[in-house]
Amino acid sequence: MSEASYVADLIDQEDDFDRWYVDVIQKAELADDAPVRGCKVIRPYGYGLWERMAARLDARIKATGVENAYFPLFIPKSLLEREAAHVDGFAPEVAWVTRGGNHELPEPWAVRPSSEAIVCPSFAKWVQSYRDLPILLNQWNSVVRWEERPRAFLRTLEFLWQEGHTCHATAAEAAARARQMLDVYQAFYAEDLAIPVVPGVKTEAEKFAGALRTYTVEAMMGGKHWALQAGTSHSLHDHFGRVFGIQFLDRDGERRFAFNTSWGLSHRAVGAVIMVHGDDAGLKLPPAVAPVQVIVVPIWRTAAELGPLEAAVARITERLRPVARMKVDWRDDRSPGYKFNEWELKGVPIRLEVGPRDVVADQAVLVRRDTREKLTVPLANLAEAVVSTLESIQAGLFAAASQTLAERMVPVENRAELSRRAAANAGWSLAHWCGGARCEAAVKAETKATIRCIPRDVPDERGHCIVCDRPSERRVIFARAY
Amino acid sequence: MSEASYVADLIDQEDDFDRWYVDVIQKAELADDAPVRGCKVIRPYGYGLWERMAARLDARIKATGVENAYFPLFIPKSLLEREAAHVDGFAPEVAWVTRGGNHELPEPWAVRPSSEAIVCPSFAKWVQSYRDLPILLNQWNSVVRWEERPRAFLRTLEFLWQEGHTCHATAAEAAARARQMLDVYQAFYAEDLAIPVVPGVKTEAEKFAGALRTYTVEAMMGGKHWALQAGTSHSLHDHFGRVFGIQFLDRDGERRFAFNTSWGLSHRAVGAVIMVHGDDAGLKLPPAVAPVQVIVVPIWRTAAELGPLEAAVARITERLRPVARMKVDWRDDRSPGYKFNEWELKGVPIRLEVGPRDVVADQAVLVRRDTREKLTVPLANLAEAVVSTLESIQAGLFAAASQTLAERMVPVENRAELSRRAAANAGWSLAHWCGGARCEAAVKAETKATIRCIPRDVPDERGHCIVCDRPSERRVIFARAY
Repeated sequence: MSEASYVADLIDQEDDFDRWYVDVIQKAELADDAPVRGCKVIRPYGYGLWERMAARLDARIKATGVENAYFPLFIPKSLLEREAAHVDGFAPEVAWVTRGGNHELPEPWAVRPSSEAIVCPSFAKWVQSYRDLPILLNQWNSVVRWEERPRAFLRTLEFLWQEGHTCHATAAEAAARARQMLDVYQAFYAEDLAIPVVPGVKTEAEKFAGALRTYTVEAMMGGKHWALQAGTSHSLHDHFGRVFGIQFLDRDGERRFAFNTSWGLSHRAVGAVIMVHGDDAGLKLPPAVAPVQVIVVPIWRTAAELGPLEAAVARITERLRPVARMKVDWRDDRSPGYKFNEWELKGVPIRLEVGPRDVVADQAVLVRRDTREKLTVPLANLAEAVVSTLESIQAGLFAAASQTLAERMVPVENRAELSRRAAANAGWSLAHWCGGARCEAAVKAETKATIRCIPRDVPDERGHCIVCDRPSERRVIFARAY
Repeated sequence: MSEASYVADLIDQEDDFDRWYVDVIQKAELADDAPVRGCKVIRPYGYGLWERMAARLDARIKATGVENAYFPLFIPKSLLEREAAHVDGFAPEVAWVTRGGNHELPEPWAVRPSSEAIVCPSFAKWVQSYRDLPILLNQWNSVVRWEERPRAFLRTLEFLWQEGHTCHATAAEAAARARQMLDVYQAFYAEDLAIPVVPGVKTEAEKFAGALRTYTVEAMMGGKHWALQAGTSHSLHDHFGRVFGIQFLDRDGERRFAFNTSWGLSHRAVGAVIMVHGDDAGLKLPPAVAPVQVIVVPIWRTAAELGPLEAAVARITERLRPVARMKVDWRDDRSPGYKFNEWELKGVPIRLEVGPRDVVADQAVLVRRDTREKLTVPLANLAEAVVSTLESIQAGLFAAASQTLAERMVPVENRAELSRRAAANAGWSLAHWCGGARCEAAVKAETKATIRCIPRDVPDERGHCIVCDRPSERRVIFARAY
C-alpha cells in the first residue's frame, strides 16, 4: 500500500458514516472478514480493546458480589423450548448441531443464543432452601444468533459478551438486582468508555424473550446520531423458575418458586467506542481502555542521530512504563508523517515525538489525539504530564459526547416533526406516547424509528400521544437504531 | 445433608482413586453434571481456580510477545478438510452445525475442535512480506471434541483452553517458538501450580494431527500415578502454510511458504491440581492460584462473645486483605468442626481460628492445610505469618510432588517388569525403545501403557528395545494415562 493511501482512503464521516465505520475497522486493524458467513475475526488491536473493557466490567460486576462460572455451549432442543416466550423469540435465530462424532443426534442441540435454558436446570438442582439464595453468577463467552447482514462488533452471527444469571427468593430482590446491574452498565460506559448512556425500560414490543421487564442503556452514536442498545438487564420474575422447577423452602416453611434475572453486555461496546468518539482522522480511544495509551515516535535522518535518540527513548520508556501503556514505533520503512497518521487513525490518546533537537533539549513533544494540541514537555515532567493528559482526554471525550447527547435528544411535539427528524438523522426525539403497541408500530412503519426506552431519569409530564392523541404520562425516546 | 456426612462420604484415595476424584469435585463444588451429554457445568469455585490459572498463564504468554485475538467458533467443512492429516485426526470427533436460522446450510460447519483451519486463511491474507512476520497470536475459548465418556476437567465434550497460533519466515524460528512455549508451560506448572512436569517429544503415533512434531509436558498424578498430558506445542512446519497458501516475499525477493506453530493448554490443569496435590481430606490448592487463600473461622457460643469477636475479625480482615485473598465464614447454621472439614475439603491453604480466648490474647490460631501444623500467631505478626506460610505451602507442594515423581519414574530393563509396574499402578517406566511403531503398539496392547514422551532432559544412553531388542539411543517414558 502506498504511504499516502493509508489515511487518505478513509472516507469522511459526513459523506458516508456507515462506510467510514467499515473502513476505520479495517484500517485500524480492529477486525477483519472471516471465511465463515456472518462472522468476523477480531484482530489483536480490537481484541486488546475488548480485553481491557472486559477486565474493567468484570471487576465492577464482581464488586456487586457476583462470581464467574461456565455453562455448556450447547442446549438440547427440549430445554430451549421449555419457556414458551423464550423459544418463540430465539428459535428463528438458532444454529443447530444435528451430528456429532459421526452420528445423528437423537435430539438437535442449539448453540446457545443466551444461556437461561441451560443455567436454570442447575439452579433447580442447587436451590433447596432460602439459605441457598441468592445465587449470583456471570459468564464470559460467545453466543450465536443467526444474522443475515453482519456488521463488525454490532451484529455478527457469533458475538462475545458477558451474561449474568441470578436467582432470588423474592420478586422485589430480583427486580432490584436487575436495576442494580443497569447501574453497573451505566457507570462502566460513563467512567471507562467515556460514553453517556440513557437508562430506561423497554416497551413490551422490544423486551427480551421470556422477561417480565427489560431494562436498557441506550447510547447515541456519532454521524447519524442513531441509537445503540448498549446493554440490557432483564427481570425474569418467576417465568423460568416455574418452568424449570426452581423451588425452595422459605423461612416460613412454604415451598416457593425462585425469581431470576439475566443481564448482558457485548462487544457492541467496541462499536460504540468507535462511533461515539471517532472523527475523520479515525478512532479516538478512551485512555482507560486504550490498548496503547502513548505512542512514542522517534524521528531521525542519519545513523549518527540514532544513538543519542535511542538513549533518550530508553529514558522516556523507563519513566513512562510504570504509569502508562506505551509503545515505541522504531519502524525504519515508514516516514514520521505516515506513523503520525497511522497512530491517529488507531486512536492512540497521546503521541510523543522525539527528534534530535528534543534529545539535546531533554524534552519531547506531546500531541493529544482529541484536541491535536501540541505541548513541549521537559523529560523531568513527562510522567506527570502524561498522566494528567490521559485524565484530561478521558474527561474531554465524555464531555464532548455528553454535549452531543444533550443537543441531539430533544422534545418533539408531533408526528410530523418526529418524522422529519428521523429522516434527517437529526437525533433522538422525546415524544409523548400512550403506551399502545399500535401507536409504537405506526411510528416504526412510517419512520423506522423505534422506542428505544421509557427513560428512567426524565421527569413525569402529562401530555398526549403524538399518534393517537390519548393521554400520556411521560415522554419516551424515539430513534433509529443499529 | 447431615453434618457428619459431608466429609465422611469422601472415599479414601487408595480405595478408589477415580471415585475420590469424582466425589471431591462434587463436594468441593468445582463442577457439576450438565443436562447435555458429555458436558459439565463449571461452578464458581472451580471457575475461580481456572480464572486465576488463566490470568497467570496469559501473562506468561504475553511476556513472550504474543497478543490475544479471536477467531470464529465455526469452521466450514471445506476448510477443515484442507489439511489431510488434520481432518483425518479430527473428523471423527467433530460436532456439526447443519441448520441455522431455520435453513439447511449449503455446507456443514464444524464447531471448532482446534482453530488451525480458521486461523490460517487469515494468516494468508495478512502475510505479504517478511516484514509482516512473525505473527504471534493466542486465543482463550472453548473447543468441542466428541467424547463418549466424560470426566470433569480431564475429558469433556466441550473444554476451556488457550490455543496459540504463530506464523514464521523460517522453519528454525517456528521450531524454536514451539519449544519456547513448552518452556512457558513447564514454568507455569512448576511455579504457579506447584506441579513438576516432564517435557519431551511425542512419538509419531501420538503427535497432533497435521504436525511435524509435537512437544508435550507430562505430569504424574497422585493415586494411581498415571500420566496426564498437561500441555502440547506443535511445530507444524509448512504443512498448513502450503495448503492454505500462506506465502510471503522474503528479503532475497523469493516467494516462500510460511511456517506455523500451535500450542494449547486446557482446563485439564484443574484436574492436575486436584489429582497431584489432593489427599483423603480433599483438595490442597496451591496458594498462587487458590480462589481463597485464607479462611477465617470465628468461633463463638454466646451472643455476648459475638461483639468482641466481630471487632477482632474486622482487625484481622484489615491486616490480611492487602496481602491475601481471604474470606470469613460467619455461617450460624454450621458448627466450627463442620466448617474446618469443609474448607479443608475445598483445599484452602490456611485456616485461621479465632475464638473468645484468642480475642482476649490478641491472637489467632493458624492451621496449614498441607501439614495440618497449628501455630498461635499474635495479630501484630499475622500478615507476615500468612505471607510466609503461603510461600512455604507453595514450595512444600512442589517439593512433595517432585519427590513422588522422582520416586515413581524409574528405569525398567525388560518388558515383564514394565508390565508388572503398569498393572500395579507403580508409576512411570523409563525403558529403551527402538523407535518403531510396532513395538510401541505391542506394549500398549499388552499393558495399556503408552509412550508419554521421549523426554528432553534425560541423557542419551545406548541400550536395546525392551520389545524387539534392536539398538536404542535413549529411554522413553511408558505410562498409563488419563
